[in-house]
Amino acid sequence: MSLLVVGSIALDTVKTPIEEHGDLLGGSASYAALAASYFSPVQLVGVVGSDFPQSEFDFWRSRKIDSEGVQRVEGKTFRWSGEYSWDLNTRETRSTELNVFENFEPRLPQSYRETDFVLLANIAPALQSHVLKQMEKPRFVVADTMNLWIESTRGDLDALLQHVDLLILNDSEAREMTKETSLIKAGRSIRKFGPRHVAIKKGEHGALLFGENEFFSCGAYPLEDIHDPTGAGDTFAGGMAGYLAGAVGGKITFTDLRKAMIYGSVLASFCVEAFSLDRLRNLTMEQISERYEAFKLMSQFEMPE
Amino acid sequence: MSLLVVGSIALDTVKTPIEEHGDLLGGSASYAALAASYFSPVQLVGVVGSDFPQSEFDFWRSRKIDSEGVQRVEGKTFRWSGEYSWDLNTRETRSTELNVFENFEPRLPQSYRETDFVLLANIAPALQSHVLKQMEKPRFVVADTMNLWIESTRGDLDALLQHVDLLILNDSEAREMTKETSLIKAGRSIRKFGPRHVAIKKGEHGALLFGENEFFSCGAYPLEDIHDPTGAGDTFAGGMAGYLAGAVGGKITFTDLRKAMIYGSVLASFCVEAFSLDRLRNLTMEQISERYEAFKLMSQFEMPE
Repeated sequence: MSLLVVGSIALDTVKTPIEEHGDLLGGSASYAALAASYFSPVQLVGVVGSDFPQSEFDFWRSRKIDSEGVQRVEGKTFRWSGEYSWDLNTRETRSTELNVFENFEPRLPQSYRETDFVLLANIAPALQSHVLKQMEKPRFVVADTMNLWIESTRGDLDALLQHVDLLILNDSEAREMTKETSLIKAGRSIRKFGPRHVAIKKGEHGALLFGENEFFSCGAYPLEDIHDPTGAGDTFAGGMAGYLAGAVGGKITFTDLRKAMIYGSVLASFCVEAFSLDRLRNLTMEQISERYEAFKLMSQFEMPE
Repeated sequence: MSLLVVGSIALDTVKTPIEEHGDLLGGSASYAALAASYFSPVQLVGVVGSDFPQSEFDFWRSRKIDSEGVQRVEGKTFRWSGEYSWDLNTRETRSTELNVFENFEPRLPQSYRETDFVLLANIAPALQSHVLKQMEKPRFVVADTMNLWIESTRGDLDALLQHVDLLILNDSEAREMTKETSLIKAGRSIRKFGPRHVAIKKGEHGALLFGENEFFSCGAYPLEDIHDPTGAGDTFAGGMAGYLAGAVGGKITFTDLRKAMIYGSVLASFCVEAFSLDRLRNLTMEQISERYEAFKLMSQFEMPE
């Protein structure tokens, strides 16, 4: 089944202690859509300016990412620039230029409206709701969010959460949203705001998944060398939602969500191995499956006899 | 098989944001020995003063913890007092009185010297080495350590590590020891200092296990309410070493070490549910096994068909 992905499409400049690169394809929807495309056809919704390279549209076509929902507008594409600390664990935004994103109003092509699976990648919750309202009757809605929206548009976020099947957020966001220091308490509390399932990302420490009376915990795939952490969270969300749409499709069980979380982690582990989407552009399903299996072996309490 | 445990035996005063209790049984060896006793007979080595309650010796006897190696000396027992932050994630030592521990020189009873399994719980590495030298030919040596020894007696620690099969330490200690920010790199580097296996504890985020070309990662058993984190690390080490001595006994494989790490985590999860050793005093193997199985289910990538 197809997955509709809406979010930001950006041109990034990223500085790590070792390298700096500009004009990189970035934005939550770019990462999420590409990760999802390894599992399901993707319908992309976003906005780009006249400076946005045509080559990316060609690339999307090659990956079965439908870009009919990407508006091309006079002006400059959304630009973001960030710099990472020496250990890559924290980053500072150097500049944000909204440009054509400032007046972005997502409009779904007719062919997108009956899609069953939706990923509302990280953008303002009002925009996420606006997309959801244009859809007929989505079967499973995944939403990502960030601290900015928890702090500045909490009302919009709370309204959205009533319609979300799986909310994805990181550990500090979960703590901020609930004022709980325990992530176990936080995850359970967030379910009371609406989402049936909650995934809490913990970066190098893995992720937690909460359902009704159900819980799953996994580590992160171990990596020695990380080149650019940008987009890891968006990739995780895209991998999760893509797997659910493409590989499961029907009724989603907690067991499906476990596997989806692992695929999200695997895709994110590839993402951070290179700048921008470079490592994600030409993966094979074999490489993804190999890493999934290796990850499973590393996490098994007992080995098969 | 039996496990020799050497470490500190203390009387603690612990203050959390909610409660404060004094004259609690504490110390690395007390926690480790009790946790280990659920899996194997324990031979305890330590020192206590004339103020140490006889009732604890009676309790040890009831748990098959041999206290022949515990010296009773004129004077006061080692005392430690600490206070936890509001979220229980950090603590401050309010006072440390070494008392009879100041001149502690571990002497092994003859009956301890041929024991196959040894846990050098957290004390000065010179004392840990001193114990090891009195042993005939231990089959498997587990050592715990802490930042104090990494900072102040690194030479002694490095000498000890040549003889250690499994080193247990926490994430900040692993980073300090290696100057690596990546725990994956840190774990692999520490093996080069001598220990064949390294377990890195990450508190609420679980633990990592490194062997030669082998790796295992597990989360922490999810707990909503923690009452007193004191001794969780010592209990983890005791559970691990006790399981290896009692349930495995023969040649230790990486698969055994995985299970040992889980049992260590399970015991530690009980430990923090009450002050001091209170929760550990009367567990049943059934309760331990139930939590092990629940933990396994929570961590499985795929559910059995």
